[in-house]
Amino acid sequence: MNSKLLSFNRRVRTTPYSDRVEQAGVTSYTVYNHMLLPTLFDTPESDYWHLCQHVQVWDVSGQRQVELNGPDAAKLAQLMTPRDLSKIELLQGKYGPICNAAGFILNDPIIIKLTEDRFWLSVSDSDVKFFAQGLVQGYGLDVKVFEPDVCPLAVQGPKSEELMARVFGEKVRGIRFFKGEMLEFRGVEMYVARSGWSKQGGFEIYMCDWSLGEALWDELFANGEDLYVRSGCPQGNERLESGLLSYGNDMDEFDTPFECGLDSYLDLDADIESLSLPALKAMAGKQTRKLVGLAFDRSPHMQPSRLGGSDIEVDGEIIGEIRSQAWSFRYNKNLAIAMLPLTYLAKNDSITIDGQTSLFHSIPFDFDQLV
Amino acid sequence: MNSKLLSFNRRVRTTPYSDRVEQAGVTSYTVYNHMLLPTLFDTPESDYWHLCQHVQVWDVSGQRQVELNGPDAAKLAQLMTPRDLSKIELLQGKYGPICNAAGFILNDPIIIKLTEDRFWLSVSDSDVKFFAQGLVQGYGLDVKVFEPDVCPLAVQGPKSEELMARVFGEKVRGIRFFKGEMLEFRGVEMYVARSGWSKQGGFEIYMCDWSLGEALWDELFANGEDLYVRSGCPQGNERLESGLLSYGNDMDEFDTPFECGLDSYLDLDADIESLSLPALKAMAGKQTRKLVGLAFDRSPHMQPSRLGGSDIEVDGEIIGEIRSQAWSFRYNKNLAIAMLPLTYLAKNDSITIDGQTSLFHSIPFDFDQLV
Repeated sequence: MNSKLLSFNRRVRTTPYSDRVEQAGVTSYTVYNHMLLPTLFDTPESDYWHLCQHVQVWDVSGQRQVELNGPDAAKLAQLMTPRDLSKIELLQGKYGPICNAAGFILNDPIIIKLTEDRFWLSVSDSDVKFFAQGLVQGYGLDVKVFEPDVCPLAVQGPKSEELMARVFGEKVRGIRFFKGEMLEFRGVEMYVARSGWSKQGGFEIYMCDWSLGEALWDELFANGEDLYVRSGCPQGNERLESGLLSYGNDMDEFDTPFECGLDSYLDLDADIESLSLPALKAMAGKQTRKLVGLAFDRSPHMQPSRLGGSDIEVDGEIIGEIRSQAWSFRYNKNLAIAMLPLTYLAKNDSITIDGQTSLFHSIPFDFDQLV
Repeated sequence: MNSKLLSFNRRVRTTPYSDRVEQAGVTSYTVYNHMLLPTLFDTPESDYWHLCQHVQVWDVSGQRQVELNGPDAAKLAQLMTPRDLSKIELLQGKYGPICNAAGFILNDPIIIKLTEDRFWLSVSDSDVKFFAQGLVQGYGLDVKVFEPDVCPLAVQGPKSEELMARVFGEKVRGIRFFKGEMLEFRGVEMYVARSGWSKQGGFEIYMCDWSLGEALWDELFANGEDLYVRSGCPQGNERLESGLLSYGNDMDEFDTPFECGLDSYLDLDADIESLSLPALKAMAGKQTRKLVGLAFDRSPHMQPSRLGGSDIEVDGEIIGEIRSQAWSFRYNKNLAIAMLPLTYLAKNDSITIDGQTSLFHSIPFDFDQLV
C-alpha cells in the first residue's frame, strides 16, 4: 500500500507533547490506544543510528496506564496474569501477559506495583482496562479501575543515563532494569523507571501532570544539547533486532503465550489465583505453532495476509504468516517474525520465500548466526 | 496540526476490501478498532454531495462485531446496556449505550439479535469485547464472547435501495429501518440491515466470508454504473448535519448517557438486570453538563484541548470543549458539538468564540434555525 494521510480528530487523542513533536518535524504516526504515536522523524536509517549512538526523547503517551486502586488491587492484578506477582517489590515493573480464561493473550503490559494497593498496568495496544472493569463487577472486587492522567516520556539511547541524571539528579544512575523511583520534577513526584521499548538503554518518565509536559520536554532538550539529544520514537528495525515483541503485530487475542515464546513469564506451578492458569496448564506442551525469527538478504515480495501481515506459502498452501518485518541497517538483513507450524519447524531448518532462504532463528536473534 | 502520514503494520489491520479501496483512490484513513477506516476519496465537498445524490459503497470493516453466543447471551447483553432488550425482535438492531457500573459510557453499539442465544454488538471504537469477557468470567456466565470474521460493507445514499435490490433481490426493499434479513450472496447467508452511519438512507451488509469480500464489492460496482456508484466513507460533515454522535469524539468513558443526550435509550424503570442501572437511576437529573450543537459562520480559531478537541474559554476560564466540528456545505456553516456546563446553558442562549456567536442548538440540529 502506498503512503496515505492520517485524519485527525478527538478520537485519536493528542498528547501533552504533541506540539513539541510537531515542531521536531515528525513525518508519520500510528494510532496506539486511541492516541497519536510518532513513527518517524528523519529517515529510518538516521533515526536508528542516532538512537544507537546518542539519546532520544520519545512521546510514548499511548502506552497508557490502567490503574488498579484499592484493597483488591493485588488480587485483581494476579487474576489477570499467569505470572506470579507475589514477590513483586514496590516500584518494580514485571512484564506479564494478560490472558483470558481460555489462555489467549489480551495484552502484555509491564505490571508496576506503586504501593500495596495501587498497581499500574503499563499497557500495549488494547483496552484491557475494560477486561479489568468486567472482572471487578463480576467478582465484586473492592478496587477502582481507571486510566489515570499519565503520559510516559521515554529517554532512550546510550547517553540517556547522563541526560536523566542532569534533569532528575544522580539518583537515577542507581536505578536497576525494570526498577523505578519516585523522583521530583518541578515539585511533582513522578515514577521514573529504567525501562523502555529499545535495547539501547534508557528510562521512562511516567509524567503525571499534563501542564508540566512541555516543561519536561524542554528541560531534557536544554540539558542534552552536547549529548546530541533529539526526538525519536519506537523503531521497528531496532525492536526486531532486540527481539521485543509487539502486541497486535506479533501476537494478539488469537494466540497463546506458548505460541509466542512467553513460557518464561508463566508461573504454572505457583500457588496463585490467576484466571487463565487452568487453561494454560491444560494446553502446556500442546501448542501446534510458534513464533520464529527469519532473516533474508532482501525484503521478500509476499502476498498480504488477511489482517495485514504476509502469508507464508509452501507448495501452494498457506502454512503461516510473517507478522512483522523491517530492514536491519546493522546486519544488512531483512528481519522478520513469523508464526509457523511446529510440524514444519521440526522437519526443516530453513524456509524459502520469494526465492530467498532463511534459517529459523530464536527470538531474540542470535547475531553470531546472522553475520 | 499539518497533515501527516499513517504508518502501516499488522496491528492496524487491513480489511477484505483494502485493495479495492486503494484502487478507488483513497487519500486518507483513520484507525478504528485497530483497523483501517477510509476518511476521504475526493474532496470533502465532492464526497458529500455525491453521497447525498447517488450511492456509495463504504468499507466499514472497523465496525467490528462482538458476538455473544450461548445460553446466557441475552442475559449478558442486558447486563451491559441500560436499554431494555426484552422486546427486541429477531434480526432487529437497537442502538444501546454500554455502561459500566459507575454509569459511564464504554461503547455505543447497535445491538442485534440474530437468534435467541446469539447477539452481535456492532461496536464503535473501543475493545468492549474485553468488558464482556471480564463479566462472563466474573459472573460465571455460559456464553462465548469473541470477534467473528465479519466485515460490514455499507451501501449509503438515496439510490442505495435500488442498488441493493439489484444485488440481493427485491426483498431488501421491504426491510424497515434498523431491521434486517438473512440474504444470500454467492450461496452464503449474510445479515443485511437498513442502517448505516449517514442519514441519506442505506444498508449495511454484514459480510461474513472474507474470500467473498472483493466479489461483493465488484458486484455492487458492476450493478451500479448507471446509478453513479462510487466508493465513500463516513463523513464528518454529513454525520454532524444528521446529528449522529461519534464515540471517542463526542463522548467517551468519562461521560454519562445523560450528559450526551442519550436519555431516550435508557429504560430506568424497566424490570431488567442491567449493571449500570443503579448508578444511572441515582444520577438521573443531576448532571452538570450537556452536549449541545453550535453553528458558526466560519471555523473559529481555538486552542486545542488536552485530548484533541478544542477548549471553550469564557472570561479567561475554560468552561467546556468542542468535541467535533466540520464545515456544512449544505448550510454554509461550521457545525460543532460541544460539552458545556448546564449553569452556562441556563443563563445564556448563545456563546461567542473567536469573535463569532452561535445559539445553542439541539442535536440533531433543527435546520430551520440555521438558515
